Amino acid sequence: MPGDPDRAAEALTLDVALGERSYPIFIGDDLLTRPPDRLFELVRGRQVAIVSNPTVAGHYMAGLQRALAGQAHSVLPVLVPDGEAHKNWASLSTIFDALLAARFDRNSLIVALGGGVIGDLAGLAAALYQRGIDFVQVPTTLLAQVDSSVGGKTAINHPAGKNMIGAFHQPRLVLADTGTLRTLPQRELGAGLAEMLKHGAIADPSYLAGLVDDMAALRRCDAQRMTAAVLRSCQIKAEVVASDERESGRRAILNFGHTFGHAIEAGAGYGQWLHGEAVAAGMVAAADLSHRALGLPAADAGLVRDAIRVAELPTRAPAWPAERYLALMGVDKKATQGIPRFVLLPALGDATLCRVEEEPLLETLREWAVAT
Amino acid sequence: MPGDPDRAAEALTLDVALGERSYPIFIGDDLLTRPPDRLFELVRGRQVAIVSNPTVAGHYMAGLQRALAGQAHSVLPVLVPDGEAHKNWASLSTIFDALLAARFDRNSLIVALGGGVIGDLAGLAAALYQRGIDFVQVPTTLLAQVDSSVGGKTAINHPAGKNMIGAFHQPRLVLADTGTLRTLPQRELGAGLAEMLKHGAIADPSYLAGLVDDMAALRRCDAQRMTAAVLRSCQIKAEVVASDERESGRRAILNFGHTFGHAIEAGAGYGQWLHGEAVAAGMVAAADLSHRALGLPAADAGLVRDAIRVAELPTRAPAWPAERYLALMGVDKKATQGIPRFVLLPALGDATLCRVEEEPLLETLREWAVAT
Repeated sequence: MPGDPDRAAEALTLDVALGERSYPIFIGDDLLTRPPDRLFELVRGRQVAIVSNPTVAGHYMAGLQRALAGQAHSVLPVLVPDGEAHKNWASLSTIFDALLAARFDRNSLIVALGGGVIGDLAGLAAALYQRGIDFVQVPTTLLAQVDSSVGGKTAINHPAGKNMIGAFHQPRLVLADTGTLRTLPQRELGAGLAEMLKHGAIADPSYLAGLVDDMAALRRCDAQRMTAAVLRSCQIKAEVVASDERESGRRAILNFGHTFGHAIEAGAGYGQWLHGEAVAAGMVAAADLSHRALGLPAADAGLVRDAIRVAELPTRAPAWPAERYLALMGVDKKATQGIPRFVLLPALGDATLCRVEEEPLLETLREWAVAT
Repeated sequence: MPGDPDRAAEALTLDVALGERSYPIFIGDDLLTRPPDRLFELVRGRQVAIVSNPTVAGHYMAGLQRALAGQAHSVLPVLVPDGEAHKNWASLSTIFDALLAARFDRNSLIVALGGGVIGDLAGLAAALYQRGIDFVQVPTTLLAQVDSSVGGKTAINHPAGKNMIGAFHQPRLVLADTGTLRTLPQRELGAGLAEMLKHGAIADPSYLAGLVDDMAALRRCDAQRMTAAVLRSCQIKAEVVASDERESGRRAILNFGHTFGHAIEAGAGYGQWLHGEAVAAGMVAAADLSHRALGLPAADAGLVRDAIRVAELPTRAPAWPAERYLALMGVDKKATQGIPRFVLLPALGDATLCRVEEEPLLETLREWAVAT
């Protein structure tokens, strides 16, 4: 690659090991301007659609289109409306219509340029178009870079539930340009930081501590600290996913904080809390419950709570009655046969899925659901 | 299993070898009344939806529902409208709505009870519901028993093309009750016979000859001859699919007769010819072209034509100008990088995908497209 060697030296690579579905994640601060050769090799001679929304496309579509035009057979921009409310069949159909109108064949490729919604939509479109074509993820939010870029989950929402219709479809390559995070609202940056703190809590206490130390630098998107942290988060998620690609067991530990977090989201009405904010508060509850039910040292539960606070994320939940939370958790979609299970921490850096008695759960709810 | 040992002895089993996605096909004349233990084991304790259409449900829904009710946690009948025109998102959404309203979880299972349209719809619903749940195929048409019961292809149509949106999703078990074929219109039986003749032509000349000898018995659904023939067809298809699950190469030989057949269907308007009828006529053209372009002995091309005739299927195509056929086949050709390819027979029982010169193709068209 031509270009500034200092910049090039910053780019990091991680291989997600999933047998014949393995793929590389490139992480760097300037990747959209200087894409890696592997991307050019992948698109060479193929019909390529770049799926995005108007906001993200305004920043990056023209540049990426130009970069790929020299290698691809053709490059087709496809825009879908912005926001979780549009993660539905209508948007998916917009993508299919565009691909069919342009006569895309089974060898064509979709690039998802945007956050989690775009990744989920474009990924599912790729999973279904002519029974499956290749796709590349270019996540432009921190949450998408550390979460949906690893794991191959794609989905749309249904009026009766989020992510109810979807598929597992692994990307062929992921390009995480941390430079794109500088155009991200601070609140959305926080949602990504929550996810990274979760990775530390369930798998690596020293990573958790490092995130707390570097929080100010991460909040201002310091290139070196951010690429290193995104890499570590992707490593942790990749290790968990590789051990359980289809989410039949261990992968559930990635839902740390989710049972409590979903209760907040459902009770407040979807969209009021960002998913990452609800999960952040949920992790504080899950750490507290881990202390009460599994004997996690109080100091370690406190470390989780302090990390959330340092990241300027909510540590408490709306002051609804405990009964309301129990009811909200009873409809959790992860529930098998009705009884909620929780991802808890027997020790910091070690997570497990388990059932608890009602008493410690009620104690946790009384402590936690007190936000004014 | 309790019951009449003579009947039980008729049931045949085939294992489709696809590694961890392997599954058994049970073939017999009385399987819906006496399902195999494997089906009961599979549904035990699970939420089960039986997806069907009003016509097929009128014959078999109540019986199957009763049979499974003792083992399953619950059995939910879901009806979608009959016919290819309803193989679309609206029908898929009907299935999702029903599963979500009944709070089906990730451990639930879908049974597809019907022909190819139901199998494609219910299979795709299973592929996508909560990112994939198990499904069982109970094909009730001959075409579905010998074609879609092997291979894991699922799809819906798009206004711009058939089967454009879909997934590969293997069933956990297939139950082919040849007794159900006695309620099938003769014209639809013929479409299945065409598929079986295709299997003989591309893979097993002695099977082809046996089908011709047994044609009268097959037309009246003789239990023993029909189960044996369905088994042999499934074996041939399973062997081809196992060698190329995602249809990247060899599996294309299953498209013998399809390039010509698609031209008839597209030119006549979809629905005028049954797919199996168009493919039957297409096989006669493909055999003739194999003779002209690849040196298949004229006698062997004649055997294919005679087999189609004995099955009372069309051997000739509408008398449109050759140019029209070329244009209609050119619709295929734009989808792949420019030139149409044909599945041809270098020898009877051996198929290959190849390109031909225009001259033998025009000769074949002049010979074939002469139906009055």
